[in-house]
Amino acid sequence: MATIKPPSDPEKDQKVKAVFDDIRATRGTDFINNVWRYLAFDPDLLAATWAEVKAVMATPSALEPKVKEMIYAAVSISNSCDYCTHSHLAAARSKGMTEAEFADFLRVVSSAGKTNHLLNGLRIPVDAAFLNEEE
Amino acid sequence: MATIKPPSDPEKDQKVKAVFDDIRATRGTDFINNVWRYLAFDPDLLAATWAEVKAVMATPSALEPKVKEMIYAAVSISNSCDYCTHSHLAAARSKGMTEAEFADFLRVVSSAGKTNHLLNGLRIPVDAAFLNEEE
Amino acid sequence: MATIKPPSDPEKDQKVKAVFDDIRATRGTDFINNVWRYLAFDPDLLAATWAEVKAVMATPSALEPKVKEMIYAAVSISNSCDYCTHSHLAAARSKGMTEAEFADFLRVVSSAGKTNHLLNGLRIPVDAAFLNEEE
Amino acid sequence: MATIKPPSDPEKDQKVKAVFDDIRATRGTDFINNVWRYLAFDPDLLAATWAEVKAVMATPSALEPKVKEMIYAAVSISNSCDYCTHSHLAAARSKGMTEAEFADFLRVVSSAGKTNHLLNGLRIPVDAAFLNEEE
Amino acid sequence: MATIKPPSDPEKDQKVKAVFDDIRATRGTDFINNVWRYLAFDPDLLAATWAEVKAVMATPSALEPKVKEMIYAAVSISNSCDYCTHSHLAAARSKGMTEAEFADFLRVVSSAGKTNHLLNGLRIPVDAAFLNEEE
Amino acid sequence: MATIKPPSDPEKDQKVKAVFDDIRATRGTDFINNVWRYLAFDPDLLAATWAEVKAVMATPSALEPKVKEMIYAAVSISNSCDYCTHSHLAAARSKGMTEAEFADFLRVVSSAGKTNHLLNGLRIPVDAAFLNEEE
Repeated sequence: MATIKPPSDPEKDQKVKAVFDDIRATRGTDFINNVWRYLAFDPDLLAATWAEVKAVMATPSALEPKVKEMIYAAVSISNSCDYCTHSHLAAARSKGMTEAEFADFLRVVSSAGKTNHLLNGLRIPVDAAFLNEEE
Repeated sequence: MATIKPPSDPEKDQKVKAVFDDIRATRGTDFINNVWRYLAFDPDLLAATWAEVKAVMATPSALEPKVKEMIYAAVSISNSCDYCTHSHLAAARSKGMTEAEFADFLRVVSSAGKTNHLLNGLRIPVDAAFLNEEE
Repeated sequence: MATIKPPSDPEKDQKVKAVFDDIRATRGTDFINNVWRYLAFDPDLLAATWAEVKAVMATPSALEPKVKEMIYAAVSISNSCDYCTHSHLAAARSKGMTEAEFADFLRVVSSAGKTNHLLNGLRIPVDAAFLNEEE
Repeated sequence: MATIKPPSDPEKDQKVKAVFDDIRATRGTDFINNVWRYLAFDPDLLAATWAEVKAVMATPSALEPKVKEMIYAAVSISNSCDYCTHSHLAAARSKGMTEAEFADFLRVVSSAGKTNHLLNGLRIPVDAAFLNEEE
Repeated sequence: MATIKPPSDPEKDQKVKAVFDDIRATRGTDFINNVWRYLAFDPDLLAATWAEVKAVMATPSALEPKVKEMIYAAVSISNSCDYCTHSHLAAARSKGMTEAEFADFLRVVSSAGKTNHLLNGLRIPVDAAFLNEEE
Repeated sequence: MATIKPPSDPEKDQKVKAVFDDIRATRGTDFINNVWRYLAFDPDLLAATWAEVKAVMATPSALEPKVKEMIYAAVSISNSCDYCTHSHLAAARSKGMTEAEFADFLRVVSSAGKTNHLLNGLRIPVDAAFLNEEE
């Protein structure tokens, strides 16, 4: 189904093994999900992708982890990325998103989708007040 | 610049006036931004749009207002909606988003954009584990 | 503002002149809008683009001209194409779209944008009944 | 496959039952398609979504039902929404779209996709004439 | 799974047979992939689509075939077109794209996805220098 | 116009100055385009963004620089990113893209946009042959 084939024994490659070990240590689980197992077809691409996801999503920062996963999922839904939508909604849940928050998230995401289409159809000029706020 | 012309004296229409009054009361300001002034070209569309935005974004719910605005903005950025991006980032700021949170938001949104393209190119199958979590 | 420069005297080129003459004859107006004047930078691309637009949009077919322009505009809004949104909404109006139809169009386009995001977030399986209908 | 699990006996919930009854009455069929059965996981979200779809798509308005479904499907195709594309093309057929109209629809949607990309690449300024028409 | 049903014996239709013969001759293979077999539901749409793909992708032009397939695949990934992503990445491989080039392609496509989201969020004005270059 | 304000004297910040110096050295020009001058509002985001763009686009790799810029621009056009489309088409030109190659690029990008919409409307199953190729 994928456009690449995952290596059958990825951890034979030392660079892949190091990334997988870091995924397990960072997440505190033995489960390596498909994106990493398939990306092992190119160890450099795997290492660069994991380094970025770890830095952005698994390192303490201004926003709390659950909120970051919800923002990530909102972008993934808008771009119709099947894998990313599933994996980041699962991550949001594992980081504390309740079902009530998920329903609220869906209301916000779908209302944004609605007004985005309305405004892209109306092409209304941006208020100077929004622009002034930045100055 | 828009595909419609805003009415020159919108509040002459009683339905429009009622919506504008409710916007002013809900937000505690006299400022009516362009989207509402242009939407007044069709009072029913104006009333329905405001009713939804008020219910979803200006009514207490499971997620906090600032987070809802950031999720809204994330969708708007992905859909390349110029007006919505400006108005909802301004709203996020007015509801407390700090510059550090905005920089973090940009890191998350852009990393999501990156992996969305990577995964849409690789077409990796969704893990059964993500699907099982829902059952 | 464009990524190309329109030729200053495009009709000096015989292939461009032939296309411009056909646009004027087909539309019954002397007005040549910007997309054609800029595309004249490459006469073959101009001719191929006009041939397709004429065949699809300016030739009698199963759907009426006004409806075709509204479908065209719906796609252009979804793809955030500024020029196409303006030009095809103007074309829909010139082919009879009323303001009431435009407001209805906006309701449909924005509700579709809303449920597209809702369903892309929920990833609900397609009913067998929809698939069976095709068989 | 979905990011949520549909309730096994949704009509036990009175709010869900009321929506399902209204869907059956409005459509004159006992068939409840998946989107409603899954949305029953959150009865308020279900009720709000059905209320909007009913008001926009199942209530007489300026545009005829078949045309509204085709516009809805055009947006859904552009946003790569699998479920929405299937359900609204099925609805367009059930409301009278012929195969000749469907082929014409596909020609319009795909030509729009083509020129949207061409124009988003060329970034040609919108003609003043299109803008003047609105004033 | 598709929204149309492919004809069971498409080459009974002379127009379809002529297109299929040309596909086989142009590509030097007996394999007719699904897009053509399904498009045979409308022989005119089939013929027009093949004529364009042949002219653009299978005719010598300024860019080399492998590069054209990679550009085609980049657009298809961005639009989340499952079929097109698979078929044009397969075509790029058959025209010489190496695995190292594919990994490089993925790096470029995903970094573009990243900065597209960053810039669509920041809405930075285009430099006059880029615009001047065109004049 | 932007959602942030660029610092008035960005190189006062040592981290910003180091990035700007590296941009000038890498490109062999004193010109710093807007994206970097605005990103200076957050020196860490600036440094991380430049590091990635330099590694992916300005470092020798499997694909030639001109081709990488064209792939980058193809994604940017599909995502309707105004700034990215201008900057990466300018970069493609500065790295040798001829006007004939640009016209060919536009033909490929727009045909991809066309068939993406056609296939997203038809939802044709991916051929096993494409999938087998990967195994």
